[in-house]
Amino acid sequence: MSKGLPKRSEDYSLWYNELVKKADLAENSAVRGCMIIKPYGYSIWEKMQAELDRMFKETGHTNAYFPLFIPKSFLSKEASHVEGFAKECAVVTHYRLKNSEDGSGVIVDPEAKLEEELIVRPTSETIIWSTYKNWIQSYRDLPLLVNQWANVVRWEMRTRLFLRTAEFLWQEGHTAHSTAQEAKDETMQMMNVYAQFAEEFMALPVVRGRKTANERFAGAEDTLCIEAMMQDGKALQAGTSHFLGQNFAKAFDVKFATKDGGLDYVWGTSWGVSTRLMGALIMAHSDDNGLVLPPKLAPIQVVIIPIYRKDEEFEAISEKANEIMAELRKEGISVKFDNRDTHKPGFKFAEYELKGVPLRIAIGPRDLENGTVEIARRDNLTKSQFELASQPIAEKIGGMLEEIQKSIYSKAFDFREEMITEVNSWDEFKDVIDKKGGFISAHWDGTPETEDKIKDLTKATIRCIPFARKAESGSCVLTGNASEGRVYFAKAY
Amino acid sequence: MSKGLPKRSEDYSLWYNELVKKADLAENSAVRGCMIIKPYGYSIWEKMQAELDRMFKETGHTNAYFPLFIPKSFLSKEASHVEGFAKECAVVTHYRLKNSEDGSGVIVDPEAKLEEELIVRPTSETIIWSTYKNWIQSYRDLPLLVNQWANVVRWEMRTRLFLRTAEFLWQEGHTAHSTAQEAKDETMQMMNVYAQFAEEFMALPVVRGRKTANERFAGAEDTLCIEAMMQDGKALQAGTSHFLGQNFAKAFDVKFATKDGGLDYVWGTSWGVSTRLMGALIMAHSDDNGLVLPPKLAPIQVVIIPIYRKDEEFEAISEKANEIMAELRKEGISVKFDNRDTHKPGFKFAEYELKGVPLRIAIGPRDLENGTVEIARRDNLTKSQFELASQPIAEKIGGMLEEIQKSIYSKAFDFREEMITEVNSWDEFKDVIDKKGGFISAHWDGTPETEDKIKDLTKATIRCIPFARKAESGSCVLTGNASEGRVYFAKAY
Repeated sequence: MSKGLPKRSEDYSLWYNELVKKADLAENSAVRGCMIIKPYGYSIWEKMQAELDRMFKETGHTNAYFPLFIPKSFLSKEASHVEGFAKECAVVTHYRLKNSEDGSGVIVDPEAKLEEELIVRPTSETIIWSTYKNWIQSYRDLPLLVNQWANVVRWEMRTRLFLRTAEFLWQEGHTAHSTAQEAKDETMQMMNVYAQFAEEFMALPVVRGRKTANERFAGAEDTLCIEAMMQDGKALQAGTSHFLGQNFAKAFDVKFATKDGGLDYVWGTSWGVSTRLMGALIMAHSDDNGLVLPPKLAPIQVVIIPIYRKDEEFEAISEKANEIMAELRKEGISVKFDNRDTHKPGFKFAEYELKGVPLRIAIGPRDLENGTVEIARRDNLTKSQFELASQPIAEKIGGMLEEIQKSIYSKAFDFREEMITEVNSWDEFKDVIDKKGGFISAHWDGTPETEDKIKDLTKATIRCIPFARKAESGSCVLTGNASEGRVYFAKAY
Repeated sequence: MSKGLPKRSEDYSLWYNELVKKADLAENSAVRGCMIIKPYGYSIWEKMQAELDRMFKETGHTNAYFPLFIPKSFLSKEASHVEGFAKECAVVTHYRLKNSEDGSGVIVDPEAKLEEELIVRPTSETIIWSTYKNWIQSYRDLPLLVNQWANVVRWEMRTRLFLRTAEFLWQEGHTAHSTAQEAKDETMQMMNVYAQFAEEFMALPVVRGRKTANERFAGAEDTLCIEAMMQDGKALQAGTSHFLGQNFAKAFDVKFATKDGGLDYVWGTSWGVSTRLMGALIMAHSDDNGLVLPPKLAPIQVVIIPIYRKDEEFEAISEKANEIMAELRKEGISVKFDNRDTHKPGFKFAEYELKGVPLRIAIGPRDLENGTVEIARRDNLTKSQFELASQPIAEKIGGMLEEIQKSIYSKAFDFREEMITEVNSWDEFKDVIDKKGGFISAHWDGTPETEDKIKDLTKATIRCIPFARKAESGSCVLTGNASEGRVYFAKAY
């Protein structure tokens, strides 16, 4: 197959868009800004969901489901929340269509106007806290540890597949606690769950940190985040976890009887990751040949391709392939035997390269004679002969998959490290942001004004105040005022 | 705990509503007609989803995701589809809110009116077939076997938790085929998958059959269904599978190059089950004490409750409980040890009865002395002493869970059989529908007019033309005209 994929070095943005479409991950729909997640793309998302869901349950959370619609008035109840979310909402105003009088189609029935408009949820804090009011009376009802897998809508003007779409899929955790400390611990715990998921499964190194007030979630007192570095030097926020203080409890009057007989507002958190992670996964690892998927999230880990001319060769190869498949499956390795006779091996090689299948096994007549197979790694494009008698093949393949998982992570980690630049002057800052990109580790005076000014001048924002920063006071890279420590600036998706 | 549950015999409808709320399955939300699925209810739905998803994948389907919104004009493209679905739609007309000038809250920004209104999907045939147009060019692209797990909205006027809600969760399969026969086979296959799921997992016997033209899906040429019988004698449609013919392919111009060089419209199917199944599950098996859950769908299969007075008794019982838990979990049995010291055993007994946990193990000090435990079955409320030395407990419990699963099915099956009444005169028909309910097996002349008339007179509809009906011609129970065979009438949810 002809891939027709642009090179990253020529047009990174076009490369990304084309890759998403050509690898059958997603495409634009007839509805502006809404994407279709295609079966191959969705199967990666399902693997992400499964692992995250397991991690949420292991940390004591259960799933539930809350309504898609939010009464308009709910949005206004938390003052900063409405500022953050009211701008870009899909608004339901009517509940019926009818045939047009000229018979040309259907029109909105003006008689069926809602008394109060409904907002398609951009996030569910308001509807959930209005529910928690009924669920929480006493400290015995706490903590309440609930997660929801759902679709949400934010009417973005400029959209990009997976990275920024009007509708997207996500999970949103919403927890309620009896003390501020417990809620803060939960906020930190979930940020760490996200980081662990990103690093262990997505092979994506992330910086753990805290957002500045400017970049905080609308309605939160503190927002923790994980930030990843893409190959073009732009950062991507991969997950956020918010300490809500008592803001939503106050907005929705959620109080509880304390152990010592008092009455207090409940403390809250919320945290979420979305199909945006798909964008991060694609952009972090893939190359000019197509997708590179970490084995732990690859829907197909191994593909077997037969190389043959005659029917009897195909028969013999199929027999061997079936043996190998059985052995791999016994060890939980997902494997596909592509025995289509409608496509040549070269076409298949290119197709699985494009789709990022981590390992390809090719078997030809000479391999059968020699008791070998050819194994090719997608990540570094190396090939090797493997003698079947030398080691059980499931052990060999299992080992290689682990190696690939580590290797993809290391490559991304080394790149990320290389893309962190400490700068100590404004000229240096401008130079690095223009020419190199990546994270700029610089002193900042702690004011939103300086942050805004730097954003205006360079489009770089403070991605986070990293938890792992060294203790080092200094002077702000823009204003020269006192700084408590370095923060990470970057241009971001 | 005090259950405060009404009796089925006194007010079946109130019993159902109260049970759904008291067993923590679902509740109404602040948005009219939209429900909140609570954690315990959602965990049952998750088990249903997992089994169905496995069955779909085993039959070759993959999941994907299509947009929540459908352009209004799409709905009109298939003539009978628009008739069926345009009536009760949530319509998005605007994409922004703004602060009201008097500062009292937010209002819809009149400047942000959509050019074309968007409908919140009531079902996704239209948006999916508009997409399939791009996915299908040749017979090589067929069959296309796609499923979607999603939320949908139908603006129902009278709603009931799980049974009929404005928003509900479901799966919708949408497949495309190169021949009518293949699409018909798929339609039949998926109806059978649903029937197998209902019987094997939900312990719910179903009648497999075909809908009459009146009851067919809007846009389908044939609708197959599974129909279940509830304890109050009303039927419940538990799943439908539609043969769409070439209707949607024609509406969206989806053609494919045939093997022999021609060009033809694609043949389609769609099929779905929803959170309505939760309603069926609850109503089919539960009793005046609360939920009765088939073990295969119970989030907790076994609960262990300690009976003690002194702390050292609790210690010893806990040790034994932990041993038992470990043994049960090793065999994949889900078990909870309720060691709360804030609630008495009696309260716990009632709570797990209400929540339908299939087996309860109670352990007291005397049990420890005697090497026994007490095992209580939720379904038939029987209790027995079990000698731990007599048999490995996991084997005993595993066997009992299987027995319960079968027993719940048998009970529902016997009831359903008892509720099928053959009638041969109109007087008998009226009598049975008024006094006994259930399925009425009667001859019908095959006309929509007679069907409508019977509905007007009795509220009973033709639930299906059962596949298993015997070959028997006769005369219509209402008109006396010739009939090709008996059909099942019932009042239905």
